[in-house]
Parts: sequence; C-alpha cells; structure tokens
Amino acid sequence: MTQDWLDACLLEETAPNAATTKACEGAFTQGSGTLHLRGSLEEGLLAAPQNEAYMRLPANVTIEKPRHPRSKCGTYLPGVTGSHPLLREELVNLPNPLWLAPSFEGERYDLDRCDTRNYRRVLDMATGELTRSFRWHTRSGAVLHCRYRRIVSKARPNLIVQTASYTLETGAGRLAVTAGIDADLRTNGYDHFSRVEQSAEAGACQTLVETDTGDTVYLAARMHSPHLAFVPDGPGGKHLAAETVMAPGQTVTLTKLTAINASRDADGGGFEALARLLNGAGEDAEPLFAENAAAWHDLWAGCAVEIEGDTEAQRAINFSVYHLLRCAHSDPRVAVCAKGFSGEAYFGHFFWDTEIYLLPFFLHTRPETAKTLLSFRLLTLPGARKNARAYGYPGARYAWESGVDGTEQCPNWQYADHEVHVTADVVYGIWRYWRATGDEAFLRDSLSVLVETADYWLHRVYPAAPGVWHLNGVMGPDEYICLCNNNAYTNTLVAFALECTLEALHLAGKMGWPLPRGPAADEAWRQKAAAVAAGLARNHRPDGLILQCDGFDDYEEPHFSTTWPDRTKLWGSVVSQEKNYRTKALKQADALMLPFLFPDRYSDASVRKNLDYYLPYTTHDSSLSAVVHSILFTRLGEAGQAYTLFERAMNIDLDFAGGGAAEGVHIANCGGLWQAVVLGFGGMVPAEAGQAPEFHPHLPPHWRALRFRLNLGGTPHLVTIRDGAATLEPCSRDATADGGN
Amino acid sequence: MTQDWLDACLLEETAPNAATTKACEGAFTQGSGTLHLRGSLEEGLLAAPQNEAYMRLPANVTIEKPRHPRSKCGTYLPGVTGSHPLLREELVNLPNPLWLAPSFEGERYDLDRCDTRNYRRVLDMATGELTRSFRWHTRSGAVLHCRYRRIVSKARPNLIVQTASYTLETGAGRLAVTAGIDADLRTNGYDHFSRVEQSAEAGACQTLVETDTGDTVYLAARMHSPHLAFVPDGPGGKHLAAETVMAPGQTVTLTKLTAINASRDADGGGFEALARLLNGAGEDAEPLFAENAAAWHDLWAGCAVEIEGDTEAQRAINFSVYHLLRCAHSDPRVAVCAKGFSGEAYFGHFFWDTEIYLLPFFLHTRPETAKTLLSFRLLTLPGARKNARAYGYPGARYAWESGVDGTEQCPNWQYADHEVHVTADVVYGIWRYWRATGDEAFLRDSLSVLVETADYWLHRVYPAAPGVWHLNGVMGPDEYICLCNNNAYTNTLVAFALECTLEALHLAGKMGWPLPRGPAADEAWRQKAAAVAAGLARNHRPDGLILQCDGFDDYEEPHFSTTWPDRTKLWGSVVSQEKNYRTKALKQADALMLPFLFPDRYSDASVRKNLDYYLPYTTHDSSLSAVVHSILFTRLGEAGQAYTLFERAMNIDLDFAGGGAAEGVHIANCGGLWQAVVLGFGGMVPAEAGQAPEFHPHLPPHWRALRFRLNLGGTPHLVTIRDGAATLEPCSRDATADGGN
Repeated sequence: MTQDWLDACLLEETAPNAATTKACEGAFTQGSGTLHLRGSLEEGLLAAPQNEAYMRLPANVTIEKPRHPRSKCGTYLPGVTGSHPLLREELVNLPNPLWLAPSFEGERYDLDRCDTRNYRRVLDMATGELTRSFRWHTRSGAVLHCRYRRIVSKARPNLIVQTASYTLETGAGRLAVTAGIDADLRTNGYDHFSRVEQSAEAGACQTLVETDTGDTVYLAARMHSPHLAFVPDGPGGKHLAAETVMAPGQTVTLTKLTAINASRDADGGGFEALARLLNGAGEDAEPLFAENAAAWHDLWAGCAVEIEGDTEAQRAINFSVYHLLRCAHSDPRVAVCAKGFSGEAYFGHFFWDTEIYLLPFFLHTRPETAKTLLSFRLLTLPGARKNARAYGYPGARYAWESGVDGTEQCPNWQYADHEVHVTADVVYGIWRYWRATGDEAFLRDSLSVLVETADYWLHRVYPAAPGVWHLNGVMGPDEYICLCNNNAYTNTLVAFALECTLEALHLAGKMGWPLPRGPAADEAWRQKAAAVAAGLARNHRPDGLILQCDGFDDYEEPHFSTTWPDRTKLWGSVVSQEKNYRTKALKQADALMLPFLFPDRYSDASVRKNLDYYLPYTTHDSSLSAVVHSILFTRLGEAGQAYTLFERAMNIDLDFAGGGAAEGVHIANCGGLWQAVVLGFGGMVPAEAGQAPEFHPHLPPHWRALRFRLNLGGTPHLVTIRDGAATLEPCSRDATADGGN
Repeated sequence: MTQDWLDACLLEETAPNAATTKACEGAFTQGSGTLHLRGSLEEGLLAAPQNEAYMRLPANVTIEKPRHPRSKCGTYLPGVTGSHPLLREELVNLPNPLWLAPSFEGERYDLDRCDTRNYRRVLDMATGELTRSFRWHTRSGAVLHCRYRRIVSKARPNLIVQTASYTLETGAGRLAVTAGIDADLRTNGYDHFSRVEQSAEAGACQTLVETDTGDTVYLAARMHSPHLAFVPDGPGGKHLAAETVMAPGQTVTLTKLTAINASRDADGGGFEALARLLNGAGEDAEPLFAENAAAWHDLWAGCAVEIEGDTEAQRAINFSVYHLLRCAHSDPRVAVCAKGFSGEAYFGHFFWDTEIYLLPFFLHTRPETAKTLLSFRLLTLPGARKNARAYGYPGARYAWESGVDGTEQCPNWQYADHEVHVTADVVYGIWRYWRATGDEAFLRDSLSVLVETADYWLHRVYPAAPGVWHLNGVMGPDEYICLCNNNAYTNTLVAFALECTLEALHLAGKMGWPLPRGPAADEAWRQKAAAVAAGLARNHRPDGLILQCDGFDDYEEPHFSTTWPDRTKLWGSVVSQEKNYRTKALKQADALMLPFLFPDRYSDASVRKNLDYYLPYTTHDSSLSAVVHSILFTRLGEAGQAYTLFERAMNIDLDFAGGGAAEGVHIANCGGLWQAVVLGFGGMVPAEAGQAPEFHPHLPPHWRALRFRLNLGGTPHLVTIRDGAATLEPCSRDATADGGN
C-alpha cells in the first residue's frame, strides 16, 4: 500500500480533551472478531467511575442521552449477554482488563488532575495497534515519559497484549503501579454479574464472572517486567501492585497479557485454556505485536480501498474497513451488532443493518464472512418462529432487534411490533449472497428460512379486495412515521422475498433437493404466494413517485425553516415525538431505499423525482441515511450533492467533537461508506456468480484515482479507476497488498 | 329508606375464598374522602407478604398482570405521592394501620392455615362499616369466636376505628395479640419511603414516613382494652403486644384507634394534631361508630337511588353511590383517581373519567363536589401549561394521566402524547357545570382555562385546505386505534370547547369581567377560533354515520367469531397489540360517545345507524364502555339490549370471581352506572340552571319503580318513576332520607 494510505491509517488524538474522550474510546476500539475492547485509558479516569448503578430507560433511540458523559470502558465477547429488566437481552460489558495505574511519589496519575504534556494517542488501523505517549510532570518535580502500546490480537483472538514503559527524564523517586482486572462495573448502569470470583498471586491475577443469563467468563492476566515485581495488593488481595525507586534517566518497562474466554466457546472456555494460551504467548510482547500486524496486513490485502487526492476520505474509508474487519468473525452464532461491539447503545442487538448495510462489503471482499453473517439467520430460525407465534402467526418472523437466539429483544414496542421489513430484508440478503456466489448448498440450507418467512407474510397480509393485498400497521425504514399501511419499501421487499422463495422452490424441484417441512409442497400455498407477490399494494405512482405509504400526502409539512433553525442538532431532538409522528419529516431514506437496493428497476427520472420529493423532508437523523442518498446522487451524475452527503457520512464517527462513536461505532455506516465508494463513486454493478462486474464510475472531481479490492469467485482482484475508466485485474493477495502505485 | 334498600347495602363474603380475597379487598374499600383503606384482613395473610420488591413495568393497561395475586393492602391519602422510575408519580400505599394479629396457645391465626368456620364478612354500605366474624377451631381444641368491626370515619375523616372481640366458646388457653402499624410495604413493588421512624409505648405506637417526593405522613395508634394491656413488643419494640389467659366462655375485647395526617394538610399535619384527634375521640368506639353512621345517613339522603324489583341492580347502584360518596371530598388540590383511591392500578393518576363519568352524579346530587373536582383543573392550569410547553405549544394541555400538579404522568407515550381529547373534555365538564348551576363566579374563574386550552388547540390543528382544519396524530377514546387523524369524537369536542370559549368571552364582555392575560382580547385570535370551530373536520357522513377517524374503513376486520371464541377473556388479552392496532376492534365507545354527550344533536336514526355499525366491533374491554351503550339503547327503547349492557357494567366490580375490584374499584363505571339509571332508564334530560329537568323514562320491564334524589338549585328533590310516569318533588333532606314508600 502507498505511504498516503498508511498515513491515513493513523487515527490520532493529539491532546487530552474531556469533551472528546468518550468519542475516542469508541473510535479507537480494537478487536479480533472474538473479543472487542474500547479505547479507554489504561488507568481510567477518577472522575468517571464505571460502577455507577442506574436504570437506563429504553427511550426513543433518537433522543436518548446515555449516562457516563466522560468515559465508558467496554470489553465485549459477542454472544455473552445478560438480561436487563427494561432493555431486555444486552451485550454485557465484561471486567475491564486494561487496568494499569501508575503513581509517582504517591501521586496517582490521572488525565484530569495531573500535568500532562506532549500527549499523543494513535490508533494505527493498518496494524490495529493503539499507542499512547505523554510526559507527566509530577508534583514532585520529576518528569516521567509514559508510553503505552496495546493490541487485541487478530492472531490469537482471545489475547490482549499491553506494554508500558516509564522513562524518568527529570528527577528521581518511587514509581508504583497497580494492575488487575476491574470487575466492579456496569452495563448501561446494570450489574449483570451474578457471581464474581477474583484472585491474585505473584505476577498474575484472574477473574471469573457469571452473567445473569448463565454465561461464565474467565479472564487471566500475567505481568512480565524486568523492573517491577508484581504481587497481590495486600493480604488476600485480588489485584496486583509493584513499586520501584527510579534513578534519573531510568526506564521501567512491563508487559501485561490478558486472556479471556467464555463458557459458550466451543471448548467451554476456562482458566486451563487461558493458561495454555498465555503459556504459548510467552513473555515477549514484540513477536505478539508482529504476528498481529501480519494478520492485519493479510486482512487489508483483500479489502483495502485507496483514494488518491482526498486524505480525509481515505482516512474515513480506512476507518470503516478497519472496523468492519475488526468485527469480522467466523462464528455463525452471532452477527455484528448495531454498534459493532464497541459500545452499549442498542444493547448489542442485531438489526437489518447486517443484510442491508454490512453484507455488500463482506460479500464482495470476504464472502466467507458474508456467509457467516447469513448463517446466523439460519441458525436463529427457531427464534424467528417464536417471534411469529408470539404475535399470533405461523411461519417465521425475524426480530427487529434480534437477540443471540433470534428472539425479539427490542424494548420499544413501536419498533418491535411494526418494523417487520427486517424479515424480508433477511431474504434479500440471502438472495443477494446466492446470486453473487452461486452457493447452491447455502441456498438449499436456506429453504426453510425462505418458506417459513413467506408463510408468515401470507398470514400477515390482508385481502383488501379481490387480487389486492395490503400490509397494514407497519413501520418502514423511516422510523419517524410510527405506523402506516402499505409502506412501499416493506411491500416491495415482501413481494421480492415471496418471488425469491418461489424461484428457490422451483430450483429445488429441478435439483431434487428435499423440501423443508411445512407448506412448501402445497400448490395452493404457492399460488397464494404468487398472488400476494403480484397483488401486494406497492404505492408506486404512474408518474414515477414512490409514495412512502398510504396517505403520506396527508402528513403535515414540517416547515423546517422555522422549526429547525439549528441544524447541528438532530431534528428528533428539537421536535416532540408527538409532532414528529404526524409530519412528513423523514428520519432516513425510505422509499429511496428501493432504487438503492434495486437500481435496475428505477429509471434515472424516477430517482430524480423521488429525490426531489423526499430529500427536502429528510433529516438524516439516522446514520443509515446519508450514504444511500449519496449513491443515488452519484448515479445521477451529481458529484457535488453526492460528495456533500458522503462527507456527512464520513463525519458520523470521525466528528469527535460532535460525539462521533462515543456510544459505539456506527458500523452500518461503515458498511455504507464502502458501498458509497465502490457502488457509488466506483459505479460498480455487481455481477451474478461467475461473471465480471461492470463499472460506471463517477469519481468526485478531486479524486485522482480510486483502487479497491474484490473477491470474485474466490480470486482476489484489484479494481483501478482513473480518468473515468476502470480496470479489473486478478492479483495475488501479496501482490495486492504491496501493489498499487 | 326501605328495608329492601338497606338489605341491598350489604356486600357479603360468606366464605373465605383465596380466589376472591383480593377482589373483596377492593370492593370493601372504606374511606372518608380524605383517607381510604382497602378491605384487607386485620392479620394479613402470611402467604401474601406486602413488602415484595419488584419493578412494575407500565405495560399496555389492558393486558397487564399485576403482582400480588392473593392480597394487597392499601392505605391512601389523596395527594400523597411518590416518584416511581417507570410509572412516574404514583399514589403511595401508606403504612398499614389495620394490623391486629391474634395467636392462641402459640398458633398464629391465618385464614389459609387455620380451621375457620362460620365465616362472614360484610360491608354495610349504608354506614360504611365493615364487620367480620368467624369461629376459629384452634389446634389446641379451643374454639374462638372472633368478631371485628371497623370504619374510616366520615365524621372524623382522619380517623380509623377498629374493634375486635374474641369469645372463647370451647376450651381455655392463652390469647396473644400483636398490633401496630406496618411500614414495611411497597407500592407497585417499589419502596417510596425515604425515611421511616417508628416507636411504641404502653398502649400506643406511632409511625412517621417521608415519601421520596417529600410528603411526610404521620400515623398514631392507640389501643384500649379492658382485658389486654398492650406494651411494646420487646425492648425498643416499635409495635405492640398483649396477652391473657382466657377462661372458658370469656370474651376479650379491644379497640384500636388510628389517626393519620400528612404534611400537605392545611395545618401541616403532625403527631400533635393526631394526639388532639385521638384525645377528642375518646376510648369508646360506639359513639364513633354512631356519628359515622349518621354522617353516612346524611350523605345517602341526598343521593340514594331506589330500584323496586331488582335486588341485584339495587346492590350495584348502592355500590356505585357508596364508592362515589366515599371518594367525595372538598379538597380542590386533588380530583378522584381512576381507581377511586382503592388500589394501585393506574397509579393514582387522574383521567378524563372525572369530567365525563363522575361529574354528572356529583353535579346533580352534590354540585359542591362537582365544583371541587373542576376546581382541581383550575388549580392545575400551571401544570397544563407545562404540558403544552413540553410538546412545543403555547396555551394549556391537560394531561391524559394527570399528577397532583397537573403535569403529564402517563408512563406510556402512545396515550400521553396522543389522547389529547382530555383537554376538550375538561372544558366540556366546566361548561356542563356552568349551564347546570349558573355559577357565574366559577365561569369567570375558568376563563383562563378556556382561553389557554383554546390557544393550545389553535396551534395544534393543521390547515389542510382553505377553511378546513385537521387534527392529526391523535388517539380517541377507543385506545385500540393507536394513532389516527381527525377522530370524530376529539374534533367534535375540540370544536365544542372553542365555541364555549367564545361564548364565555362574549359573556365576559357583557358582564365586564376582566379578561385573562393572553390572546383572549385579540380579535384575530377569536376569528381563528371561530374558523377552526367551524372548519374542523368532523367525519360525520351525510348518511348519519359518524366515521371514527380518517380511513377507519381501511382498518382490518377483526373476525371475532374465529379470533375470539372465549368471550370470558378480554379481546386485548387474546390478540397481539400489533394486530389489534390495525383492526376495527374497538376497546370502547368512541364515535358513540358523541350521542351520549350531545344527545340532542343526533337523531334516533343516526344513533341506530352508528350502534349497528360499531357495536359488532366493540369489545367493551374498557369499563367505560357498557354504560354508554346501555344509555343509547335505552333511548331507542330497546330495553333488552340496554339491560344486558347494564348488567355487564354492574358486574365489573361485583364479579368477585372474575377479579372485580381487585386492583381497585372502577370508579368511572360507578359514575356511569348512576348515569345509566338516571339518564338512561330514568330518561332524565338535565335542565339549564333554574329550570326543571324532563324525564322520558324507559324502565326495564321488571323494575316496578325507580326513585332517585337530585339537587336542583340547592334544593333536594325526589324523583319517582312508576308506570311510565315521573314525578319530581322537592323534599327536605331528612324527609328524603326516611321517605320513599
């Protein structure tokens, strides 16, 4: 990769800033797919205790103000959850393994309270390493140069490696360091630990917690240092402490290795497995850093996007791909949650984001990961059946906010009950994967999902007139309309899902695949499915306008010019929900999702008409909105509008001052940014399996070139777009990684 | 009153029945207006601890399953509230003053565990006395005849009087009695006491609690007994105990007097005031029972309804009037909450029930109480202003579930945000009071309410077309349609409220009353009010059908015959809310509220048309529904249908096996039953102030006669309906009370 690309992999915090600490914690999240760790400070912040208990209410997601304004540490194992009385299932914030807290001459280091200079913290997204250095001017007059480095190893996914070095540049005195595993913390203010066991011995400590849903998590830490002898912090102490008198100019170093596993692991987890992992890791951090960097190098080789001429866009797309790769895993028992396992918002639930926003990136660069994500839906079909039963229907209904077992975990009924499009979105994702890969075995395995979700729809629709079917009482992607009939997006996706199901059943017959139990073999059922697919009200007007839902015309004008003067605030935060629910204000693309997902079905004129109609009403309060509009404007050749919206999407996580990723990375937007670059500006038209994609590039004028990697039929390819033309060439992964120009 | 009437004042429980204990607790609630006490057992139930902590979720009110299935004691002072994290403000269940627990030879009496025979518990609604007697066959072989009697004194509204007598009919042995004030209890599972102080001395104990909103409540109890010497139950004991060895045939008696007041009382409450009250009450219960019975006699004299030929209806109307009179008070700082201060459901909040269901009874029998209830709205205008601001409007918006200060306390947003009709209902109530009483001073005092609520409406409506105004995004009385536009009921009430406001302003000008500050003097504002009143969409069709709301035709058929086979269950409990919200199923009268409230505006043919259309869709899941339909059928001369619905309403609280008043009395239905008898079967057409009402009676065929009392222009009147004719005669209160024939 080029130096420009490498430079744009550096995400920096150059000064400690109370207002952006939390945003950096989210943006700097490290992870191995298996284990994720927010970018919190090793020593924490004394002013931001992590054990504050409070009852987080599941307020409207747009207007919720989470607690812990300064800092929230976070350690997550996807799939390890607890049960919250209001938020329902939630990803549990595990004991914090970061803890390394130095004191000098009795002064405890704290970013708020100590004289800190030359501060620099950098996440190198090329290697996943987070480093931090600063000079601490201690009250004693001594100046200590502190340096930290850490990874969550992509090579050993259950291992965290930390090093610290303290160099005494001025003065002399006693350095004391405490270290350990902090189990006294909460998830969204709630204590999910029904059992906590901690112990320490010379150079090591360990923690066991059991969550209130029965998962057991094991953490074991070992300290290695030529200068510090860590011992338990008192008789029966559960943490570690060490101290030494430093001479002028002396450097004290230490390495902390923490391994984490859980009872839900294939091998059942436990301290013995952790000991093997720690024994195998050795005492020297350098080779661990190196193997992690190599693993990240390999990951980037298949996925990197290079933009010449736009450093900010380069950094933003690197940020997106970094977090997508961080989340990538091979465990079909989980998908990727709405915050990409980097914060407590949305409670670790799985949304439609997976199929609609994340899938294209993985499908076109790492189809095995796309398959893992879709396999989560196959595995959680029993949960989807439960959801259908809970609402009184046969078949399967995927959850708006899915728990690990597929059951509905959304704490707000208006979304849980009515945002049913997710069930069709899942089929859309399966179908897109099947068409792009030709993976017949997967399609065969998906038949139950297709048939049972179709069966749900056939009982959910309403016969409004002969041959006319309505889908009433739904919420579309635009969550600012609470309840409507015949949402164009939902109905179109449902009809598509029914058509896909019938096509898959037809193929199954040709191939001799066994049919799943249930109605699939029933000819009358198939005829009804075809009739509903054909007769479901679409609200597509002859003039090209896609009416969002029945009666959308009757919703009130929001009059943004007077009601929303300060556009730095979300519309949802300046209007009452009561008023919002009856205006035309849109949270995000809704009807316009259709030309985004089915570009060949809509003419440019229709796209233009719908953009003209809906954009003035669109608030982009959702992070899922800007990229879709950017792509549609790109298609129309309107580079200016497209880039403006792309910039908006770029800033969602990177605007630290505005909060950014404080509550977690907007991982769907990360996937959306990749789509905006590759499908939007790159103009890629994905092909069916075995064929080559087409490209109709529309680069922003200041982009000199765009390069990105694709996986086509198992072979890595490099696409280069320059001077309005695209070239596609197969390349070895190594060549890709080192290539470019 | 006749013997039949007196007999029908007895509400009996003739056998201890675990399934109905809680329903009896609610139905047997006693109260003085100032203080209310559920009909719990003196000794409690060991199997039903009252201190169980849990988080009650504000689920959909129809389907919520409250805890404490066996028993819930309840002691309430209207206006004494706490703050619950989810339910918001709630009426606090105060320390239980009932506690009297006998043991014999070491066997603690408990209804579940002890051999109990000849059980009888009776609430005499004529006097408000609750008595209980049974024979306890103790394990020791002795048989103890236990008798209890108690009142919450209408003569001394802060005083509870209890007596107990224990007669040893067989055997001999040691009787021990503990007594006290139990402060270890919860409200809806939540502990609202931030401070509890208890102490005891010989013959007396006291308790102070401070609620988490800062109200302090004082309770002081004194024991008087010729046979038992009560002393603290141990060193530093906070409760009382006494024991004696009983000889065969001996009777042991005791009297317990408990006085309760609160810091929010006019005099600030406190133990000194309680001591004065207790000193004044003396030691002898008999005169206290007698003065209470006399007070109840006076109350009944002005309000009793007598039905000849229908014992069940007589008991039901006595039950209704009893609880209405129990709730009647003269403190405008509170109204009457949805459960009439007899349970924890609806959290003590104040609803539209006040104006629409309770007001007519009080207006026509005790106009001073009607004025008190409406004065609550005048006093809480500042809260209504806050509600309007919170939603972004000027003016005043009354709360769907009002707290003591008028602010919105409804924990469910769909009702809080959208059930706006309450703001017009308040004006309807004010106007009805004004027309019936001619109370000019009150109308003058109400001008601010009229103008400020009107101002809210003028900003809440939407100009859909020139001269056409819409009211979008509302919930009508039928809470089974979540959100709709132009609900006919709401819009008609709003137009009425605007017309009343303009008429009141016109009168104010004539009378020279000072106008309230605000827009009232602005001619353009008045013109807009008139325009909106005239142009607000009503959804009244030319064929007489009142369409409930825009698009009601498009809602789905509920197909009750297949979807709701078991009609003993509520429809809302057998259907998912998701499905319910898109069907035509009605929870209660909605469009049909209009001919109920404005009978002269609708022809019989229109009433017939709307009943035919809506009744098949009406589930009567709400206790507010049956009486309205009964009255409309009466008007059409359909006695059978009218009586069937009347019976349904009668059973709402009296069907103990079905739950009845377990969570509290349905006080709105009590007011509704009175309306069904007087306005329905009695056919009363209330008159303007100074005029006599008309009567168009339609008695059920088996009713030989109907008599009821009215207050007309300050004078008590007796109405007698017999043989299809009504006579109206003024009478002295005493004559009324003893009269009849």
